Amino acid sequence: MGDAMDRKASGGQVPPDPLGGMGIAEFGAALRAGRTSAEATTRAYLARIAAVEPRIGCFLHVARDAALASARAMDALLRAGTDLGPLMGVPVAVKDLFFVDGMPTRAGSDIDVSDLVGAEAGMVRRLRRLGAVIIGKARQSEFAFAANLRKHAPWNPWDARTKRMAGTSSGGSAVAMASRLAAFTLGSDAGGSVRQPAALNGVVGYKATVEFLPTDGALALSSTFDSIGTFHPGVADAALVLSALRDEPPIAPRAPRGLRLGLDRRFALDAAAPGVAARFAAALEALQREGVELVPISTPGVDEIPRMAGQLVPAEMVAFYGAERLRANRALVDPVAWERIVPGLEASAHDYLRLVALHRGLVRRGMAAMEGLDGWVMPTVPEFPQPVADFSTVERVHWWNGRVNDATRLANYLGQCAISLPLPADDPGALPAGLQVVCAPGADRALLAIGMAIEQVIGTGDAPDVAGFA
Amino acid sequence: MGDAMDRKASGGQVPPDPLGGMGIAEFGAALRAGRTSAEATTRAYLARIAAVEPRIGCFLHVARDAALASARAMDALLRAGTDLGPLMGVPVAVKDLFFVDGMPTRAGSDIDVSDLVGAEAGMVRRLRRLGAVIIGKARQSEFAFAANLRKHAPWNPWDARTKRMAGTSSGGSAVAMASRLAAFTLGSDAGGSVRQPAALNGVVGYKATVEFLPTDGALALSSTFDSIGTFHPGVADAALVLSALRDEPPIAPRAPRGLRLGLDRRFALDAAAPGVAARFAAALEALQREGVELVPISTPGVDEIPRMAGQLVPAEMVAFYGAERLRANRALVDPVAWERIVPGLEASAHDYLRLVALHRGLVRRGMAAMEGLDGWVMPTVPEFPQPVADFSTVERVHWWNGRVNDATRLANYLGQCAISLPLPADDPGALPAGLQVVCAPGADRALLAIGMAIEQVIGTGDAPDVAGFA
Repeated sequence: MGDAMDRKASGGQVPPDPLGGMGIAEFGAALRAGRTSAEATTRAYLARIAAVEPRIGCFLHVARDAALASARAMDALLRAGTDLGPLMGVPVAVKDLFFVDGMPTRAGSDIDVSDLVGAEAGMVRRLRRLGAVIIGKARQSEFAFAANLRKHAPWNPWDARTKRMAGTSSGGSAVAMASRLAAFTLGSDAGGSVRQPAALNGVVGYKATVEFLPTDGALALSSTFDSIGTFHPGVADAALVLSALRDEPPIAPRAPRGLRLGLDRRFALDAAAPGVAARFAAALEALQREGVELVPISTPGVDEIPRMAGQLVPAEMVAFYGAERLRANRALVDPVAWERIVPGLEASAHDYLRLVALHRGLVRRGMAAMEGLDGWVMPTVPEFPQPVADFSTVERVHWWNGRVNDATRLANYLGQCAISLPLPADDPGALPAGLQVVCAPGADRALLAIGMAIEQVIGTGDAPDVAGFA
Repeated sequence: MGDAMDRKASGGQVPPDPLGGMGIAEFGAALRAGRTSAEATTRAYLARIAAVEPRIGCFLHVARDAALASARAMDALLRAGTDLGPLMGVPVAVKDLFFVDGMPTRAGSDIDVSDLVGAEAGMVRRLRRLGAVIIGKARQSEFAFAANLRKHAPWNPWDARTKRMAGTSSGGSAVAMASRLAAFTLGSDAGGSVRQPAALNGVVGYKATVEFLPTDGALALSSTFDSIGTFHPGVADAALVLSALRDEPPIAPRAPRGLRLGLDRRFALDAAAPGVAARFAAALEALQREGVELVPISTPGVDEIPRMAGQLVPAEMVAFYGAERLRANRALVDPVAWERIVPGLEASAHDYLRLVALHRGLVRRGMAAMEGLDGWVMPTVPEFPQPVADFSTVERVHWWNGRVNDATRLANYLGQCAISLPLPADDPGALPAGLQVVCAPGADRALLAIGMAIEQVIGTGDAPDVAGFA
């Protein structure tokens, strides 16, 4: 990754990160002190998008005029004495599959799904009422399945020379966040679709417990697993956004000392690529030095879940989009996505119901296995982002999709919440990798407090220098 | 039905109803005043069972020794000053499919299902903790589908000469109640399995909102629709048992005046056999004279539900029992039950999920259609109990099963609670029919208050004279 320096040197046309490394809390203070405005910030993001988006390709739609109008209105409202709270005037990008009035919704597909698009998503309504500025919609992989073979995918901003896997399905949201094209971004996660691209793009990705945040108003992948997720430069922003979205008190960080974290060596370390495992092990050592206790565990479900994954989610996807629509438009579907759809067309109702029952059993086993622990840790993805050119067949992309979701899918099947933090590297140009923390169902606030404790030890991830994309 | 008198004349060997027409509240007062005991009452039920059960055949298992031991313990506990409340010392019979320690669980089948039997049912645990005496287990139709072609079915106690349909699937519980072989009986209802046999046996049958009372610890028919139901001579007992089971205050009866009840004439009256319709219309007139307002409605789902019924419940049934087990034991399954199972084996996961979504939509439409109304009324079953001999082919039994559940299934698909009350007849020997009241999801307490108001106007049903079965 020696080209990081070259890119930095060639830069200049890319306007700087509008938040300049500030968290959302600091931005809010600057906004209320009159040192910046929602309009100026939105304009700066739009300028940055204009400079790099043509090559990075993470946006489905940029809502330039609507975002500026909304930002101006927020500035006026604040001047008039109405403060909507910490998300007021904060520019946010939203994943394709959420319904946003006045913006397209495609779920990354060329199939016409407009009849399925209804009233604005519950998450978007909340964001608007809290004064956030919807700057646009981020791209996703087709139907929110994992990586496609032929469909457009965003460019991973950590390497401007070689196009590398940017992660799926909320890849656009992750890339937009890594490239600092919004203050935070919204995604969804049914198997790793937030945490996995977060890890591959070197940002924080938080996946909420199912229904901890509302999933209505979206093109669904899985009625069982769909959950909301957000992308941030650091954990404090994730905590601020979650407490704002739920109208709850701020989440206090906790100290690393005394944390008891479960570690499944076989699953977490032995299975990961050596470079990822080494960075993860170094982070664990740093955590232990600060008084974190690592408790050996054996993760429930590791053997059953890969078998379950092939039928449950595809059956729910087919039910949502409709078997007839999919069959009639097969030619429009990416071949990798189609291979995922077929078992969803063929699954029997009784097999599906058995899987749902197995999932409920796994949730109970996961909760039991977590007793006495604050959470579990593991590498989020066992691989670094690989060159896209290395994946030119359906079989290869399938292998990648299975491999990169192996450690994330677990939390979905166990009903948990989870967060991925960027793993620190000695070499500043190193490709990103992630550390995943998993907590019990509904323990989302504790999860973010633990995330802040870990971040305090391992540090906040760097941003890629995107000058090379201009 | 001129033979009612003959049976009465020939009687004598059948010990009288131990409660002698008392409600459970009166029995409790007598018990606490020392005028009766739990043991004497249980003994009297056992003697009555011994006299008529051989021909009526409504019990799968009579727990003679365990019931007497439990009754004696309740008497001792009460004497020692521990009062467990209104169900203490009250003999109750439980439907086959609930797990009861020390008693068989077969779901009316010859297939081995012992591996599915687990810890005692939540409902049975509650009954035991409240001091009820489990006198035995009542028979049901195979797998809780509707009437079988060849399997054993109880005899409808209203006609000792001609064996008539006793209703399904909680037929044994309904017959045991009608025959006064327990103070009340427990059933379950996924399409009418409590209300339909209640109507055909001239007793009160209450179907709770799904999960208003716990359904765990049972051989499931439908994970979506399974709901608890109870059988009683009158509505006051149903109300007393519900409030005891939920540890809530007694349900106060309300006056009929001012009740606004929805009536779908096409569905409720035009579709019923003339004799049933006439008795229902007479009851409506009596209610109107007492100030009940009947509001014309059009029932949502009437056209969709029959189409949905063929796949949703069978798929859940197959998932519960297992496709392999059912296929391997097909020869043991009643041919009518098998015809219901086949679509459950064949249903696709995505079709099933579509039906679940349709059901959710119907629940919303049902709630909207109920706004401003206290409930809906209709005949519970559009037919009187017909001679079993008239149903000697799979096709004929199927027709009967569809016909008799037509008005009950509605409440399951709309997520409602419902109760069937015996419709009064001029002729004391007339065959039974029922009036069904349906209320909004969760409005179970209001439902029972309305049931008491209606009963106040139309009267409590008579008991059949079972002397002819001795």
